[in-house]
Amino acid sequence: MAERHMPPPLRFLLAARRSELHGLEALAGTCELVVRISALVHALQKERGYSNLTLCSPQERLQQTLAGLSDTAVRIETDARHFLDGLAADPAHGSGKARLLNGIAFALFRLDELPALRRQIRDRAIAVADADARFTQVIGSLLAVVFEAADSALDPGVTRILVALLNFMQGKELSGQERACGVMGFTAGFFSDAQKARMLGLAANQRRSFDIYAEHADGAPRTVWEQIQQQGEPVERMRDMAQRTADGQRVDGSLAELWFDLCTARIDAMREVESLLAQALAQQCERRIADTRKELDDRRLLLSRYAEHASGQAPSMVFSVQSRIVDTPAPDGVGSELERSILDMMREQTLRMQRADDALHTMRGALEEKKRIDRAKLLLISHYGLTEHAAHERLQRAAMDGGLSLSDVARQVIGELAGN
Amino acid sequence: MAERHMPPPLRFLLAARRSELHGLEALAGTCELVVRISALVHALQKERGYSNLTLCSPQERLQQTLAGLSDTAVRIETDARHFLDGLAADPAHGSGKARLLNGIAFALFRLDELPALRRQIRDRAIAVADADARFTQVIGSLLAVVFEAADSALDPGVTRILVALLNFMQGKELSGQERACGVMGFTAGFFSDAQKARMLGLAANQRRSFDIYAEHADGAPRTVWEQIQQQGEPVERMRDMAQRTADGQRVDGSLAELWFDLCTARIDAMREVESLLAQALAQQCERRIADTRKELDDRRLLLSRYAEHASGQAPSMVFSVQSRIVDTPAPDGVGSELERSILDMMREQTLRMQRADDALHTMRGALEEKKRIDRAKLLLISHYGLTEHAAHERLQRAAMDGGLSLSDVARQVIGELAGN
Repeated sequence: MAERHMPPPLRFLLAARRSELHGLEALAGTCELVVRISALVHALQKERGYSNLTLCSPQERLQQTLAGLSDTAVRIETDARHFLDGLAADPAHGSGKARLLNGIAFALFRLDELPALRRQIRDRAIAVADADARFTQVIGSLLAVVFEAADSALDPGVTRILVALLNFMQGKELSGQERACGVMGFTAGFFSDAQKARMLGLAANQRRSFDIYAEHADGAPRTVWEQIQQQGEPVERMRDMAQRTADGQRVDGSLAELWFDLCTARIDAMREVESLLAQALAQQCERRIADTRKELDDRRLLLSRYAEHASGQAPSMVFSVQSRIVDTPAPDGVGSELERSILDMMREQTLRMQRADDALHTMRGALEEKKRIDRAKLLLISHYGLTEHAAHERLQRAAMDGGLSLSDVARQVIGELAGN
Repeated sequence: MAERHMPPPLRFLLAARRSELHGLEALAGTCELVVRISALVHALQKERGYSNLTLCSPQERLQQTLAGLSDTAVRIETDARHFLDGLAADPAHGSGKARLLNGIAFALFRLDELPALRRQIRDRAIAVADADARFTQVIGSLLAVVFEAADSALDPGVTRILVALLNFMQGKELSGQERACGVMGFTAGFFSDAQKARMLGLAANQRRSFDIYAEHADGAPRTVWEQIQQQGEPVERMRDMAQRTADGQRVDGSLAELWFDLCTARIDAMREVESLLAQALAQQCERRIADTRKELDDRRLLLSRYAEHASGQAPSMVFSVQSRIVDTPAPDGVGSELERSILDMMREQTLRMQRADDALHTMRGALEEKKRIDRAKLLLISHYGLTEHAAHERLQRAAMDGGLSLSDVARQVIGELAGN
């Protein structure tokens, strides 16, 4: 029986399921984008690392490696842009995706800065700290896209993996920043107090990110990460060494390269975890789409059998037995068995969606912190007419001065300015 | 300049805005559905009231009025069903609407019971309490659709009005249930202890719903409601009278009709508030769609001017000046002014979406209570293998026994069973 001839409750029951299927298909596209972004971020992190090294000590060997890394990053970026063109044309990527699309626009805006930056690095016309900061900005805009992807996903299983991946990418990015900060300190032979504080902060925030990651990960991505952690001892030792240095207690500048290599090995190993998460993401999307499609087909079949069976009756009679079905099994043959299945199906669908919503709510909890910080910034902007940058600085200063996390300071600001 | 020739950041900036526009257009359809549902609920409430009256005291006059009311309800239902057929065919009503569509399926399922119920009432083959309960079930399923509509709306202004309307409809429905309960008590000449408790509960819950309504309403819908409240004294007096009755202290059974007329006048006056809210809803949707469309056009124009201006440069250079724009106004002519506008636009769009998200979060707070109760029910179902009905009963009993609100009991259950 064609669907448009089905009784309306059945049609809407199928429409609800189809809505979920469309949502999952669009989500699969978003996930593929996230996977491409994680590859691009990895390439840019590597490129940033070697840019810093060549700007610190220009060697032919390093410059060649850097040129190769830049080419790789450009190739991955080009592929990602082609993929984005396809996504932009897809109408399923429509409503409810405004924040994600806005994030993509901003990331593209940042990516457009890269060619000029690369020229400056090649010409040695930029300070190492500035080049580092500009790569970091680009990577930050890409991480923001991953955040919006995680926040807009409507499937709790997918959201869980996206939250895991986002936190892993954040931890890995902080490792990259720590590597850069360490290269500068070890090259100089000692770390200033400000640099030491920054190193401590980067290590602490890495731990936080990786802890949240571990809470949301399971299977191979978790096991591989545990193995990497067990091999973290050499990096830890050099961190301690950095804290013991001072202007009067310098260490050999050649330690910079050892530090760089140890960190790089660790970061490259982390990439393996990201690949495993990417696989898990793709598998979860495929599985959910296949399951939903199969259920939709099964239901369509069952409902059309039911509708055919009921078509002899007056249309308004089709569901007139509902209260009987709820309370006790109906006594007679095939028709009432189908009626029961339909009511069960409705109830099961409602419960399943509720359960999913609940799980989604739990998974998104991990994203709340960033939202709280954004909210505090927004309040500072509107109350004191600050720029976004100044608002961020003020939060960070308050956190440092008070020995608090950014999230705690944000909570205080919200309490004071929003009055709740 | 055609949009597909624009630099990618600009294209995605427009895509984000267009995504909002599509969302608003779909939301306008949902709002029209809600308005039709509020009219249908009102008609069914009236029909339920007269069904109760005729089942209590069969009079030719009442039966004729009832027949007219049934016809009106059927007409409104038929129109709403035609409107739904259009909605179901609209692909914009796609992903993210699964819960709303499921709610619609269930409401249609319930509505299909009405013809059989009306026959039973005409034939006097159903007890007044059963007829009352079955109308109440149908109305409950329609209110659930309004809840899902409010919960799925992504515009804070629209959500505010939907939350106001939902709570007003709930308060009005509780008034209708109170009217029915009162008719039975006054017809008998006294109220049992259970009936008295129910009357008190219905009055208290009405106040709660109307308080939430008042928090979310402004302008004419609020003023008219305040006027209605000021005329509530006669109903209050009869409520007090009901509480003073007992088997030994009966009142005249003819008070039933006075009670019914007073309540009906009040409920009919409430309908005026619903109509004003419906207007406010339509206006808000129209205004937001018009604003968004205009902004989209303005931006498209600005961006295509910018893209034309920039097309002489290498594509990768288009945004290479970003950091200069952020920190200080660029010094040179028209190009940089446009660049500034674009960055301002990006920043403004981000802040606006964040602000909207924040407001949305606040507005949805009023829906959290029902979600908490649903969550507690779900935990009871999965922990003790209860049916949904039994879970609801258990929550209600615990609330009554402990002198707590359903929401407090739900919080306790979640604390015990979910461990947070």
